[in-house]
Amino acid sequence: MIRFNCDYSEGAHPNVLRKLSDTNLEQTEGYGTDPYCRRAAGLIRDLIKRQDADIHFFVGGTQANLTVISACLRPHQGAISADTGHINTHESGAIEATGHKILTVPSPDGKLTAAQVREICDTHDNDSSREHSVQPKLVYISNPTEIGTIYTKAELTAVSQACREHGLILYLDGARLGYALCAAGNDLDLPAIAELCDIFYIGGTKNGALFGEALVMTKDSLKPDFRYILKQKGGMLAKGRLLGLQFIALFEDDLYFKMARHANEMAGIIKGACVKKGYKFLTESMTNQQFPIIPDRILKKLKENYEYTYWQPVGHAHSAVRFVTSWATRKTDAEKLAKDILNS
Amino acid sequence: MIRFNCDYSEGAHPNVLRKLSDTNLEQTEGYGTDPYCRRAAGLIRDLIKRQDADIHFFVGGTQANLTVISACLRPHQGAISADTGHINTHESGAIEATGHKILTVPSPDGKLTAAQVREICDTHDNDSSREHSVQPKLVYISNPTEIGTIYTKAELTAVSQACREHGLILYLDGARLGYALCAAGNDLDLPAIAELCDIFYIGGTKNGALFGEALVMTKDSLKPDFRYILKQKGGMLAKGRLLGLQFIALFEDDLYFKMARHANEMAGIIKGACVKKGYKFLTESMTNQQFPIIPDRILKKLKENYEYTYWQPVGHAHSAVRFVTSWATRKTDAEKLAKDILNS
Amino acid sequence: MIRFNCDYSEGAHPNVLRKLSDTNLEQTEGYGTDPYCRRAAGLIRDLIKRQDADIHFFVGGTQANLTVISACLRPHQGAISADTGHINTHESGAIEATGHKILTVPSPDGKLTAAQVREICDTHDNDSSREHSVQPKLVYISNPTEIGTIYTKAELTAVSQACREHGLILYLDGARLGYALCAAGNDLDLPAIAELCDIFYIGGTKNGALFGEALVMTKDSLKPDFRYILKQKGGMLAKGRLLGLQFIALFEDDLYFKMARHANEMAGIIKGACVKKGYKFLTESMTNQQFPIIPDRILKKLKENYEYTYWQPVGHAHSAVRFVTSWATRKTDAEKLAKDILNS
Amino acid sequence: MIRFNCDYSEGAHPNVLRKLSDTNLEQTEGYGTDPYCRRAAGLIRDLIKRQDADIHFFVGGTQANLTVISACLRPHQGAISADTGHINTHESGAIEATGHKILTVPSPDGKLTAAQVREICDTHDNDSSREHSVQPKLVYISNPTEIGTIYTKAELTAVSQACREHGLILYLDGARLGYALCAAGNDLDLPAIAELCDIFYIGGTKNGALFGEALVMTKDSLKPDFRYILKQKGGMLAKGRLLGLQFIALFEDDLYFKMARHANEMAGIIKGACVKKGYKFLTESMTNQQFPIIPDRILKKLKENYEYTYWQPVGHAHSAVRFVTSWATRKTDAEKLAKDILNS
Repeated sequence: MIRFNCDYSEGAHPNVLRKLSDTNLEQTEGYGTDPYCRRAAGLIRDLIKRQDADIHFFVGGTQANLTVISACLRPHQGAISADTGHINTHESGAIEATGHKILTVPSPDGKLTAAQVREICDTHDNDSSREHSVQPKLVYISNPTEIGTIYTKAELTAVSQACREHGLILYLDGARLGYALCAAGNDLDLPAIAELCDIFYIGGTKNGALFGEALVMTKDSLKPDFRYILKQKGGMLAKGRLLGLQFIALFEDDLYFKMARHANEMAGIIKGACVKKGYKFLTESMTNQQFPIIPDRILKKLKENYEYTYWQPVGHAHSAVRFVTSWATRKTDAEKLAKDILNS
Repeated sequence: MIRFNCDYSEGAHPNVLRKLSDTNLEQTEGYGTDPYCRRAAGLIRDLIKRQDADIHFFVGGTQANLTVISACLRPHQGAISADTGHINTHESGAIEATGHKILTVPSPDGKLTAAQVREICDTHDNDSSREHSVQPKLVYISNPTEIGTIYTKAELTAVSQACREHGLILYLDGARLGYALCAAGNDLDLPAIAELCDIFYIGGTKNGALFGEALVMTKDSLKPDFRYILKQKGGMLAKGRLLGLQFIALFEDDLYFKMARHANEMAGIIKGACVKKGYKFLTESMTNQQFPIIPDRILKKLKENYEYTYWQPVGHAHSAVRFVTSWATRKTDAEKLAKDILNS
Repeated sequence: MIRFNCDYSEGAHPNVLRKLSDTNLEQTEGYGTDPYCRRAAGLIRDLIKRQDADIHFFVGGTQANLTVISACLRPHQGAISADTGHINTHESGAIEATGHKILTVPSPDGKLTAAQVREICDTHDNDSSREHSVQPKLVYISNPTEIGTIYTKAELTAVSQACREHGLILYLDGARLGYALCAAGNDLDLPAIAELCDIFYIGGTKNGALFGEALVMTKDSLKPDFRYILKQKGGMLAKGRLLGLQFIALFEDDLYFKMARHANEMAGIIKGACVKKGYKFLTESMTNQQFPIIPDRILKKLKENYEYTYWQPVGHAHSAVRFVTSWATRKTDAEKLAKDILNS
Repeated sequence: MIRFNCDYSEGAHPNVLRKLSDTNLEQTEGYGTDPYCRRAAGLIRDLIKRQDADIHFFVGGTQANLTVISACLRPHQGAISADTGHINTHESGAIEATGHKILTVPSPDGKLTAAQVREICDTHDNDSSREHSVQPKLVYISNPTEIGTIYTKAELTAVSQACREHGLILYLDGARLGYALCAAGNDLDLPAIAELCDIFYIGGTKNGALFGEALVMTKDSLKPDFRYILKQKGGMLAKGRLLGLQFIALFEDDLYFKMARHANEMAGIIKGACVKKGYKFLTESMTNQQFPIIPDRILKKLKENYEYTYWQPVGHAHSAVRFVTSWATRKTDAEKLAKDILNS
């Protein structure tokens, strides 16, 4: 059985593990105040070209999302999100548990548009009894989205402008950011994201780390006291250096992007087979997640040898499924699946 | 500079790291549903002699505490704790952030007594307008306490009985449980704790793991849907097997207790020097945390070579400090500190 | 200027005020434990034919909704609601502020169907990673809905059955319940509602009281400790008897329903004019709220003499607006508006 | 049976009721945006001599406290309070339910001192791991306190200075403010309180209104969006004018203070009897709450004719109880109780 159901089936890239082993018996301060966390933060500041950014490390994405949103909002404020947004669908109500409503907008491709942001703000601002509804204050987007699509620079710029016009905080969930930045057709890079967003995170868990997300905060007003809230929400790792060390491994050379490119390439092999076979796709993805629509009887056969994620039924006797690749996907495995798709 | 300020200055015991390396490229399910987590849970069930217990793994202690307390209580209910309790002092309001008051009682030795539990319940129950105050529903204790003392079997049994009489949930924070169970004078063991408490956790972070706490739930009414809340609070690790693997390393042989015994022994060396020197102690501790009261001028000198935790001033020109040892403390280091204390 | 924009523009029905005056200098216990609250609760138990029901009084509807939902749910559970539901649109995130997500379903007529309830539950139950999403546990409906429609007995019975099959709590917001029960075509009554729902409230604020909502709880498992949560959320009125006295005034004779019938009749006069004029309606309402779609140029003229609620634009140059009547609406005023509509 | 157990046993002063009756059939806007609320706010601004103050009306004190504290604090911040503070003892965890810890300090006389405020702040600021504990940000005091004592101008000035030095918000709960301002020995007035505090409320429920508390906010940074949070917490009364009208009745002439003076005078009669009888008091109170310490056998006899609040046992066979008077206390009743005390 070969797993294509997610990008966190294995441990970590060997370089990451080695970094942990090599430093294992050193003594450092706890809670992320050690030299390795500082070094990792420095590497990230260089990459994003913002020496003024605050960097905080989290163990996981839900933890990052709930801590950030809780830290940014007053009680009556909410987060705008595509209805497909991870915070809206797969975090067991983590955001609401911190007291905040998610203001959703429909999005077939998983992306939020500047027009949608403006409309939700204008509707709110023009409501004479606006105090009776939640005030939009933060925009949550993910890149790539939960369904594999990516933002162009023009799209992200437009969303960013809409946010700044309306005084909204723009927060980008980059759980799989590497895959977006390495995707065919992408024209964004880290400095542009740091410029356009107020806060975002670079995901490690889904791209080669044991665990870990690096949060980047560029907006000054969000910075004070963030570590209190990180601690309060249970997100402050005692041996914080484990996070710093991993991000050093990912960013001291090109490893982070090398892994993402590999995963995208492997996904391309699977995608190619589906295209050749004439399958349609739920979304147009150039990243490591592919959502082909496949006859159910074929899926049944594939299931004997491969794990994939069942997504949703599409019409009669077909379903959209998700195949996910990672740094650890072997080319032989991707090709085997591609062949089995073609021959099915 | 040698660190005696905490028990999480290093990485993990080499056996723990090796377990991660050996399995690194295996593919498993995520979120703690993998075979390694099942195996670790099995080992723990055997140790505590309760095959009916639910086991859940957390990355850290604050996360465990806030998730458990939030899962156990209705909105109007609170947790009784010694005023020295970790949830009351060092979690940045994590419990209150989930909506619950901590009902504190004074405790010079860090322990809660059955009489204190009964009094708080009786006072509440006898109040004709009791609906205007928080209903006590859970008792939080830590063993060893935050100041190094331990519960005897008689004490824990008494607290447990008081809880059962009043319908309270008894929750034991075992962040350093190994040190308590290996302390001189201890007469508790894991089966007794599992019997007397409704829920407790066995701490890994502070005893040789990279990170990780194993939560044990024996009370049936607390079990349903716990994983939803684990996810909601951000505590569900994507690569959950990292937790399972570490607890296998800790418990498949006697490693967990071997490390604790070593740490206690190292602490004994430091304690011995203080005793010989005639220093008093803030508390009587047989565990890996020692709280001697030392003249400030001596502390100033020790500070040049050792990290310790400043605790509190005691009278004029003296202070209580904390020295902490761990699995990783070298005997030569403990002896060096002991010698420097004696010669000071 | 005559107000048709809401049903709480005036004070209270004179009988209500008189009851307060007549008892003003009597001394009673506070917080709803007085004889008047007991008497009002008794009257309501008789009306609903459930002597086992718990009755609690609230000052307002948002307070009732947030207290009930917070009292009924565990942290990971959410409330299913039509997207038009008051809790979803006009309570400033009150439900989320207590930690719970609202799971919305689209509803052009403001009503929730049994099929929608079943679908949301089945989808959740069949999801293998259901712990990553909010667990549906309570169904929130309003009768009449926020847009004036009412549930038939068959519809409510079906929703109730769906709830009981899936272990959901059925909660009915009756802020305007009187208007529904007195509407043409209604076949529900209070005993049926008490039987089919687990908890509901009978609204006083919008039907002749100064303020006040009477909450009825028939499900035993919801009853314990409710008053703690009522107090905690700020909903326990010190001079609680003010609520009891008002509900006595409303229910010791037929006043509550007499007022509702009058309001519905007044609304019928306005509706009749719109129908005669050929205006369409946003929804088919037989209650005291009417939502005609009227040319904007006519609305502009009506605005000179009447207050109404602007609802939404409909196509080009038309808008849906809301006219609301109450116990206090004078027949001459309703007829004047009807005439002005006809002559416009 | 004559009730001396609280100051909200009756309805409202007849002037208050009359104001409601006189305007009953007028139509106004809802939610506190009507001319009567504006007029009441204007009267209060004149009294406190701060035309820049924001005024909001609440139905009750717990609602006011939880809304204010929730509106003022970020998630990691807490409120300093005397351990006797109403928010700490008699609000069923209302503050914690909004996510915030109460940082208590012991206070035998119910008052908080500037020194206590400074110490809690200094301790926090000097803690190198302060991010692990709750950040003090608001100081909650009540005047008179829950046990009848009052702040002098010098004391309040000192607390205010300590707050301003440490960037803390000073919030005064004035549930019984009238009684403090009319007490013998008081040297504070409303303009001084408005100057020294950032936010406070003038209580109506416990001084002659049916219900209602008028919140005064002078600090600009607290003002934005307060009405959203008022709505979210369930505190926005639909027929908001009921609050405005009542405060007009209280403040358009001297009624508020006249009632308080009367109540204090009645309390003085009871106090005098206790003094003459040689009873000690739990606290030195010049306000409408008296806490004499009386032999239990005498209390038993008094109980046959009078309601009082049992407070706490004091030594052997004695108890502190609370007698409370109000605008509605008849002189004959106070004298009857005084006589019965003297003759007991």
